[in-house]
Amino acid sequence: MRLVLASASASRTALLRAAGVDFITDPADLDEEVLMAQLRGADAQTVASTLAQQKARHVSARHPGAVALGGDSVIGFDGDHLSKCATLEEAKALLRRLSGHTHLLVSAAALARDGDLLWTHVSPCQMTMRDLSPQFLDDYIAAEGMAILSSVGCYHFEGRGAQLFDRVDGDYFSVLGLPLLAVLAALRKEGMLTS
Amino acid sequence: MRLVLASASASRTALLRAAGVDFITDPADLDEEVLMAQLRGADAQTVASTLAQQKARHVSARHPGAVALGGDSVIGFDGDHLSKCATLEEAKALLRRLSGHTHLLVSAAALARDGDLLWTHVSPCQMTMRDLSPQFLDDYIAAEGMAILSSVGCYHFEGRGAQLFDRVDGDYFSVLGLPLLAVLAALRKEGMLTS
Repeated sequence: MRLVLASASASRTALLRAAGVDFITDPADLDEEVLMAQLRGADAQTVASTLAQQKARHVSARHPGAVALGGDSVIGFDGDHLSKCATLEEAKALLRRLSGHTHLLVSAAALARDGDLLWTHVSPCQMTMRDLSPQFLDDYIAAEGMAILSSVGCYHFEGRGAQLFDRVDGDYFSVLGLPLLAVLAALRKEGMLTS
Repeated sequence: MRLVLASASASRTALLRAAGVDFITDPADLDEEVLMAQLRGADAQTVASTLAQQKARHVSARHPGAVALGGDSVIGFDGDHLSKCATLEEAKALLRRLSGHTHLLVSAAALARDGDLLWTHVSPCQMTMRDLSPQFLDDYIAAEGMAILSSVGCYHFEGRGAQLFDRVDGDYFSVLGLPLLAVLAALRKEGMLTS
């Protein structure tokens, strides 16, 4: 049985590949901004879970019989939902806003077959960002460059982004965008990995 | 000021390098088996912490004025201290023993200068290994090969080893051998990283 990753995320691809999972990639082409606008009143868990499910169902419908894996990550902070930034200026403003505070990062995953949901999981992480000096912030953005624009929250946590945080309460894989242990368990249950 | 990593661990080296820390490497050449034998009655936290401190102090003494970082990881299970395996046969027996049980993995880190301890930190993780089938175990060892011999517990958790676990309660970086966020905070306090 074939697994289709419904995401173009380099981080999700790398996590699954490192864990020894066979899959092909076919990113969902949903308009996430429209979907997030529709979910404006919902909490971060609901937003991430809904988007992960929609991606999985949408992509599974065009791969009959295959299992599609959707994933999504959203930050909840101060009543807002935050996601990726388009420019380094936006990234700097976002990091200044999060600096010295704890925010919620939610990663969700979902499996679907032939348009129907098989499984879903939501993993919340409490991320405590330390008080970043202007010098640190400039050095960080200069060193990491455009790489930070591909991460929700502009962390690049698997790189120099670890220097941003005093404390992380939650699953590392989920911080990188995929609750991997839960996904692997679901794939075993679907008979797609050896138990 | 210079940082010296007192460890030959590929995993610790990769974690520090990815986080953007500048350092040189000079592995401590202590006889860990002798030290672990001396600590036979102690708990896993004490063993890991003592070894991390001894490595940091030992290496710092031969780099005057520099800061040395020592690290150690130990598994506590069923009254024993477990570490690395020498052969794939030993690895298979160890994984069979841990299969279906929760064990304690302790990673410790220490900083020293001129032979004196500056800082130390111990990070315990509860690792719940699922019930591994003989087929899975054979596939896992065939796929990962000798790579598992370089990990305490033979996990290679950053690779296919994620498939071994139902649940991990603790810090991911510590599972890989280094409580990275705590180390980065200590390096900032010593003025070795920009705050």
